[in-house]
Amino acid sequence: MASPVASAALKARIRRPSMLKKLCQPQDLLQHFPNGAYIGWSGFTGVGYPKKVPTYLADHVEQHKLQGQLKYSLFVGASSGSETENRWAGLDMIARRSPHQVGKAIAKGINEGRINFFDKHLSMFPVDLVYGFYTKDRPNKNLDVVVVEATDIKEDGSIVPGASVGATPELVQMADKIIIEVNTSLPSFDGLHDITMTDLPPHRKPYLIMGVEDRIGKTSIPIDPEKVVGVVESDYQDQTSPNTPADESSAAIATHLIEFFEHEVKHGRMPKSLLPIQSGIGNIANAVIGGLSESNFWNLKVWTEVIQDTFLDLFDSGRLDFATATSIRFSPEGFKRFYDNWEAYHNKLLLRSQQVSNSPEIIRRLGVIGMNTPVEVDIYAHANSTCVMGSRMLNGLGGSADFLRSAKYSIMHTPSTRPSKTDPHGVSCIVPMCTHVDQTEHDLDVIVTEAGLADVRGLSPKERARVIIDKCAHELYRPILNDYFEKAEFECMRKGWGHEPHLLFNSFDLHKALQEHGSMREIKGW
Amino acid sequence: MASPVASAALKARIRRPSMLKKLCQPQDLLQHFPNGAYIGWSGFTGVGYPKKVPTYLADHVEQHKLQGQLKYSLFVGASSGSETENRWAGLDMIARRSPHQVGKAIAKGINEGRINFFDKHLSMFPVDLVYGFYTKDRPNKNLDVVVVEATDIKEDGSIVPGASVGATPELVQMADKIIIEVNTSLPSFDGLHDITMTDLPPHRKPYLIMGVEDRIGKTSIPIDPEKVVGVVESDYQDQTSPNTPADESSAAIATHLIEFFEHEVKHGRMPKSLLPIQSGIGNIANAVIGGLSESNFWNLKVWTEVIQDTFLDLFDSGRLDFATATSIRFSPEGFKRFYDNWEAYHNKLLLRSQQVSNSPEIIRRLGVIGMNTPVEVDIYAHANSTCVMGSRMLNGLGGSADFLRSAKYSIMHTPSTRPSKTDPHGVSCIVPMCTHVDQTEHDLDVIVTEAGLADVRGLSPKERARVIIDKCAHELYRPILNDYFEKAEFECMRKGWGHEPHLLFNSFDLHKALQEHGSMREIKGW
Repeated sequence: MASPVASAALKARIRRPSMLKKLCQPQDLLQHFPNGAYIGWSGFTGVGYPKKVPTYLADHVEQHKLQGQLKYSLFVGASSGSETENRWAGLDMIARRSPHQVGKAIAKGINEGRINFFDKHLSMFPVDLVYGFYTKDRPNKNLDVVVVEATDIKEDGSIVPGASVGATPELVQMADKIIIEVNTSLPSFDGLHDITMTDLPPHRKPYLIMGVEDRIGKTSIPIDPEKVVGVVESDYQDQTSPNTPADESSAAIATHLIEFFEHEVKHGRMPKSLLPIQSGIGNIANAVIGGLSESNFWNLKVWTEVIQDTFLDLFDSGRLDFATATSIRFSPEGFKRFYDNWEAYHNKLLLRSQQVSNSPEIIRRLGVIGMNTPVEVDIYAHANSTCVMGSRMLNGLGGSADFLRSAKYSIMHTPSTRPSKTDPHGVSCIVPMCTHVDQTEHDLDVIVTEAGLADVRGLSPKERARVIIDKCAHELYRPILNDYFEKAEFECMRKGWGHEPHLLFNSFDLHKALQEHGSMREIKGW
Repeated sequence: MASPVASAALKARIRRPSMLKKLCQPQDLLQHFPNGAYIGWSGFTGVGYPKKVPTYLADHVEQHKLQGQLKYSLFVGASSGSETENRWAGLDMIARRSPHQVGKAIAKGINEGRINFFDKHLSMFPVDLVYGFYTKDRPNKNLDVVVVEATDIKEDGSIVPGASVGATPELVQMADKIIIEVNTSLPSFDGLHDITMTDLPPHRKPYLIMGVEDRIGKTSIPIDPEKVVGVVESDYQDQTSPNTPADESSAAIATHLIEFFEHEVKHGRMPKSLLPIQSGIGNIANAVIGGLSESNFWNLKVWTEVIQDTFLDLFDSGRLDFATATSIRFSPEGFKRFYDNWEAYHNKLLLRSQQVSNSPEIIRRLGVIGMNTPVEVDIYAHANSTCVMGSRMLNGLGGSADFLRSAKYSIMHTPSTRPSKTDPHGVSCIVPMCTHVDQTEHDLDVIVTEAGLADVRGLSPKERARVIIDKCAHELYRPILNDYFEKAEFECMRKGWGHEPHLLFNSFDLHKALQEHGSMREIKGW
């Protein structure tokens, strides 16, 4: 094979001469991807993933009609770009996937049984990987090949990631072979990361982080140079999508939450500058962060999984002092704004591995305010974050349980209803019993919808049910849920098992009405 | 009121003269227990709880027929002795209780709706208490009075607990008034504890524990002497019950588990001396620890919640180097053995607060092997630890989720069936869907019954279902569960939501057969 000539841009990024010698084209690397291989990619929430090699492999399968003949087990910190993993799924190239995914084709593959998918707490996925749990039945006990995107290779061979760290430290730690895509279309992110590797018990150490800005690691990911089988130049951009704007409902949720924060500060349970904020993805999260940009809170700090466009507004409003996460997932406009104002932002940002950003240890220590959006919440404060109707996988658990289990304030925010195909309020997000449980009643402190906020701290299940139905349910569903609760209470008390009353064999009747009649409102009574 | 004269035994235990001046009788303290008071007690799993004052109050209510007129909110680290909290419940003296309880009368009060009970992760209960979450609606924002048992009061006024630490550090931290029962019938436990207090975010610090024997705190619990309103001499013993012996089924479970540990060591995923062991309460736990006493594993260490009699056997076998917990709950014979051989054991034991013994931070760092017994496990590896038929509370969540979420090996062990009133195999502990979820599918690695062991690491839900049914279900229920799974798979695949297949509206049909016909075996098909 003839090595390609390194561009000047590439030479400026690769400071280690031996790495330049490994420069090659994607087609030279095909041999490392036999059918059945266990593969890792860098990346998290659709940024920082490798693009050139996965795209080449997809082209190869498509051109040679190899659908179903080159299938891989694919491990990525969270979701990758749709032009890579989703395209792979469409070409039947994924046999197994963990721990999170986004894309129509991959969701279809999972829910039609072609892809063995398992979701896992994002903080724990890299730990279990290093424990050897996911490769225990492989002859080499390792991942066969790991493809990582870098924005720089340092003199010591270590790599500087781009806009995400994710599980890359652990993936390269478990790799037999490593391929590096050096992306010269992105600026070097050197200095923006705090990288720690994972030791095995009994040799693990504490994460000595006591503030969101604390650094405990290095600025790049160490790589065993002998494992590197190829270096590829890439100029493909992360394919991010536009930001989801806030709407009336999400704005109302944000208002309730900011009032709640003011209440907690007033009663001395939270400092004036609040506590480190974690905020999920989507329009409610954007509304909450947007609301904070116009609030009376200053000197805010963020300890979260993913930083989105609205955090730039929060910085620009002067209210946000520092933000740390495992991924920066801006819209294309957001990235332009970020790069254009690099000097203003780069000292206020830090990216860590997902094991650290989502670490229960640190989340509890810092007293994080955790906020996420579920599929549904039940009247006793369990939440479903993953499976519609108990069975259909959306994207996976993500970091929701990492944060909500350990946060000081564990908050679920959701619209009180969602539309079904035939009814704008066909789905109540407050239900008698969740069809799948990802967060338990022992984890949540606050449930909030546009209708109101339920503070369930220190309440028994029956007290919780009353306040959740009263404050959070849509007025269309409040009488229906009250009816369920009262009948369940009556029946269970009678039998002497009334701690958490259920009409067990009718607990999914709302879902049945939705399935049979197109709307939960069509329930005929309990 | 006339102060009682301090006995010589008591004087030897109280090194601070000002405390001796507060010596009084329980009846002198009645004024501190008005109806509606928020009360804390020391104690954990039925050891180290106050006895004299609670017993006096119960006598007072009984003698003056004050049932229902003196009702309290009662907070204890976990369960207390049955002659105290269970008697209180029987006398209708408990309005609210958290986070755990044991006793027929208290369970009855909860399930008949007279007691507002909420269970909480035992590691988190003391944290939420110090956050002020449980006293947020109280005028004083504190607990009104906290009664603690001590085996010593030091010169600085700090107290040395007995056989448990539990939530005592946080309870006294949140107390307006403190009453100390000095128990002269127990030996002084001075030196056996490692006590840490709880700071509030943003001022919390890491727990710098890297081995089970590491000490990071003091040997006694600091007390604000101005809060102490009374010191009472006590000579009541902890009322513990005999140990539950292993039976054939639990012995088979222990055998499967020890084979699994050998397998993991052989494949290099665990050191020869294993990793720190956590083991719950009950006959299976006793069988597992008993099995280790006859195994080829040496230099074992224990990081657990409660130490029971079988750990003494493990010490005596020479295999156990060190054990740490928040409570020593021996049988009366076990305590005698422990006190008689104090010199042999006391340097190998350490008691910590439940926030530390159950700390997710430390459990993950140490790579603990976590083992617990559930009510039921479902085919996708969710587990119910608390509510029978989704509604009837047993004892509470306990530390099960603290350990199983963060352990390196998260193991649920259960008999495959339990008897119903009419059928020795009337209840299958492997069910299609748990009626209450406390541990999610994202938390468990191994399910084991006397029938076999299912290793579900890295498996998708459908793969998990096959191995759990095949290995763990009782042969009487295997065809029934397979039938459910196959029909669910067919139905859900057809609809394109086959990630975690369920017949949602029939998922509790086994429970329905149990309720209607006295045995799950009576199901007529799906």
